[in-house]
Amino acid sequence: MEKSIFYHAGCPVCLSAEHDIVNLIGSDNVELVHIGKDRSRILEAEKAGVQSVPALLTPNGNVLHINFGASIADVKG
Amino acid sequence: MEKSIFYHAGCPVCLSAEHDIVNLIGSDNVELVHIGKDRSRILEAEKAGVQSVPALLTPNGNVLHINFGASIADVKG
Repeated sequence: MEKSIFYHAGCPVCLSAEHDIVNLIGSDNVELVHIGKDRSRILEAEKAGVQSVPALLTPNGNVLHINFGASIADVKG
Repeated sequence: MEKSIFYHAGCPVCLSAEHDIVNLIGSDNVELVHIGKDRSRILEAEKAGVQSVPALLTPNGNVLHINFGASIADVKG
């Protein structure tokens, strides 16, 4: 299976969701991307349809927005 | 691993998320509950902390609210 990508911004709700996602689907199956630190990935996330973080981009291209941490606009600042 | 529980209300965004979740964690690892039809489960969902559907209750008791389909209040009508 191709990897999913978990986009987050280091906020508490992001980290809590990250732990749950890693527990559920396994750390080998998901790449963790901190778009607050790795800002070069913000555009990629936006193009994939990520509107807020934390969000999980599935291997088939769907975006699951999980809870509500921060909007992409907020992360861009 | 104990099962997760995916609460939904049959809305299109719910069904899309359901397919993604089943693909990611496997149908054996998640119970699917349609609280629009199985209304006896609404109170259980509320007690678990579900505020909107679709939502995934993880085995450790955390609730991941996924996207935004319908509030519990809307499902109760």
